[in-house]
Amino acid sequence: VTSAQRPDSAVDPTHDVNLASWVDSANGHPDFPIQNLPFGMFDPGVVADRTGEGTRGGIRIGDLILDLRALHDSGVLTGPAQVGSKAASVSLNGLFALGAGPRKDLREQVSRLLVDGSEHCDTVAAMLFPVRDVTVRLPAMIGDFTDFYAGINHATNVGQLFRPDHPLLPNYKWVPIGYHGRASSIHVSGESFARPMGQIKMPGTDAPVFQASRKLDLELELGIWIGGGNAPGHPILIADAASHIAGYCLLNDWSARDIQSWEYQPLGPFLSKSFHSTISAWVVTPEALAPYRAAMTRPAGDPELLSYLHDPVDQAVGGLDIELEVLLTTASMRAGSMTPQRLSLSSTRHMYWTAAQLVAHHTSGGCDLRPGDLLGSGTISGPTPDSCGSLLEITHDGRDTVLLRSGETRTFLEDGDEVVLRARAHRPGVAPIGFGECLARVLPHHVAHGSA
Amino acid sequence: VTSAQRPDSAVDPTHDVNLASWVDSANGHPDFPIQNLPFGMFDPGVVADRTGEGTRGGIRIGDLILDLRALHDSGVLTGPAQVGSKAASVSLNGLFALGAGPRKDLREQVSRLLVDGSEHCDTVAAMLFPVRDVTVRLPAMIGDFTDFYAGINHATNVGQLFRPDHPLLPNYKWVPIGYHGRASSIHVSGESFARPMGQIKMPGTDAPVFQASRKLDLELELGIWIGGGNAPGHPILIADAASHIAGYCLLNDWSARDIQSWEYQPLGPFLSKSFHSTISAWVVTPEALAPYRAAMTRPAGDPELLSYLHDPVDQAVGGLDIELEVLLTTASMRAGSMTPQRLSLSSTRHMYWTAAQLVAHHTSGGCDLRPGDLLGSGTISGPTPDSCGSLLEITHDGRDTVLLRSGETRTFLEDGDEVVLRARAHRPGVAPIGFGECLARVLPHHVAHGSA
Repeated sequence: VTSAQRPDSAVDPTHDVNLASWVDSANGHPDFPIQNLPFGMFDPGVVADRTGEGTRGGIRIGDLILDLRALHDSGVLTGPAQVGSKAASVSLNGLFALGAGPRKDLREQVSRLLVDGSEHCDTVAAMLFPVRDVTVRLPAMIGDFTDFYAGINHATNVGQLFRPDHPLLPNYKWVPIGYHGRASSIHVSGESFARPMGQIKMPGTDAPVFQASRKLDLELELGIWIGGGNAPGHPILIADAASHIAGYCLLNDWSARDIQSWEYQPLGPFLSKSFHSTISAWVVTPEALAPYRAAMTRPAGDPELLSYLHDPVDQAVGGLDIELEVLLTTASMRAGSMTPQRLSLSSTRHMYWTAAQLVAHHTSGGCDLRPGDLLGSGTISGPTPDSCGSLLEITHDGRDTVLLRSGETRTFLEDGDEVVLRARAHRPGVAPIGFGECLARVLPHHVAHGSA
Repeated sequence: VTSAQRPDSAVDPTHDVNLASWVDSANGHPDFPIQNLPFGMFDPGVVADRTGEGTRGGIRIGDLILDLRALHDSGVLTGPAQVGSKAASVSLNGLFALGAGPRKDLREQVSRLLVDGSEHCDTVAAMLFPVRDVTVRLPAMIGDFTDFYAGINHATNVGQLFRPDHPLLPNYKWVPIGYHGRASSIHVSGESFARPMGQIKMPGTDAPVFQASRKLDLELELGIWIGGGNAPGHPILIADAASHIAGYCLLNDWSARDIQSWEYQPLGPFLSKSFHSTISAWVVTPEALAPYRAAMTRPAGDPELLSYLHDPVDQAVGGLDIELEVLLTTASMRAGSMTPQRLSLSSTRHMYWTAAQLVAHHTSGGCDLRPGDLLGSGTISGPTPDSCGSLLEITHDGRDTVLLRSGETRTFLEDGDEVVLRARAHRPGVAPIGFGECLARVLPHHVAHGSA
């Protein structure tokens, strides 16, 4: 374990709570102060583009995006940061593939360029685009997407609904449960989607019908971006696994519960979770989150970790302490200019496995991870009803209703509903940072041929 | 339904049983006579490359590969074929994205170039590489991989092992069961792999151990290559679905049964099926397979198809009649120069769903298919023990053994075992064609840190 892989917030100047930027909107920004500096991909568009066409990497600062292609071409950077910016000028996959060093160096040099009093202020100012003027893209080309099940309260709550006698399956505390998801249907925050159609078998009927889902749900998840991949067919050892993580985002794993319950036996969720998934646009780095690492405490009586999942450093600092929030606005709330209503306040502390454990497990049998692959944590629910990360749990599969401030009620999502996920990392003496929003709106289903 | 989408073997000159090629090795070739002409990707390598470096598309003919980049640059092609060859000169994903028209035209023009008496014989001869001299690659960059469960005998056999009272689940005959697989771990025929490590819980023990799989199995599957994708979020209707299929290959979905049985509840197979998957290198087109289409006959008493899965043309000709074979050689059989031993002879006739139904179902809720995506049929077993597509079925989960000609026995695969899948389409009056081999050898497990 080297200090480069396990940054200590006490000695990393990019975390200094007193840092301020000459980018005004950064100072006091709830998500993107100079202490964050997450990566993303954007297209300035034809008119605004001063540096050539097309999508390129950027770094978010306040309400602006720093163009990494222009920054590379300017020659202001040196060493690994210059190598990293060249890779990022085409796609973040290239930057991710370089591993932790160039990413860390690039973030550090950009921090020095954006800090109050930087000598390169004028040069860099010309490379900044207002985020509202550009098209923000998916942060990387996602090769494969894996969704885990690391939220133990979620697994318990869902188990309780369908197997009250033994809610948590025998394998849960031994093996990080996960399944392969669909990469093609992952979309960046802000894209609306149509309510899915699918085969649904209603209780008490003999046959399924093909119709629009009536149990459309959200799932509050943490996304984990893979940096450097493994040597093909070879495991990433648990002690090295953290260095293969490029950053984090929010993930809403929209789920059609009625399609799911009919299709999922025996091979697991399929179309009920792959019609549309939403992720937040900014890759928040392990470096920015270093002050928010947390110890993992395995409850008394839980089995000991198998050795391929056990690393003392990972147990000491491999957890994350980040607040997660689910917000809902309905069409009538928007018409009445009402603010979003909180459905849940949870935390990454409720993950049973660390991100490094998910990486080590994933590659333990030889499965290949590639730069830009995405892992989902699974739904992260807290222990109380107001901290649950899905409506399935909040309404007990529709048996209860949520009363909204508008006077409306919800069991599952209605057309026009807009869900926003947010994350906020904060603790005394450290600059709070966030992830930006993970937002999408539910549109009515397509009118297709096969509608029953 | 147009004749372009539903080619009729009676009027397609590329199927003429009397066609012969000036490429000698094509005539009488069991897999690749001039009536086949499948697509693939290859790298001629530095020395052999006469046309520039790197991987490009090709068409297999006998023991040779026709370089589509060189063919494009030669200007011999015209119209859609020229457009298609340009796309294929970079990757087959580009050709697939163009849909059926350019692919069909390209194959037809190449057929006329390779036939005995072609005026372009000398020009084209210079663009042919012996397959033994080049590196054959995966036929496309696979965005997402979905594995279905369309082999009803397999589903029944596996169900019988674990649920003798109700082997086939209630959803099976209504909904094409499938799950998302792992694209990164799909490898082209010829690449060996290490026996996977994983968590395994032995019967009668209290805790799992991390060790090498002792129940390594093969799965005999048909692979289906996606051509043109859907409009994002929109379904592909069943009547259009066949036109979105670029071709077919063989797929060995290697499976670690002991890892699978511990990990798969409740989200389905994960690492037990994603350590390595093998596909054959050549994309056999719907055009080449047109003479081998078959009617689907739904057994009496089975539920009627829901309308989004029903198309009269698909029911009439959407099935396939292709013989499938599993061959095994052990290390000692190779040492004794023994020929491979057949483990199974099955047929695509045992699929319960057509490829078009899989495509229509996959997109029915809005999930996005992209050019170069791969679908697996699921294991295709016949109704008898000698037609089963997995050792799980053949040996009843290891309760029985297979006696080999070498005097060895097998329950599951041992290190050094090599499995070859083959396909052969034949019927009277039509030139038989095949798929080439889908081959890989099992190597000993990596000696990793966490081995128990």
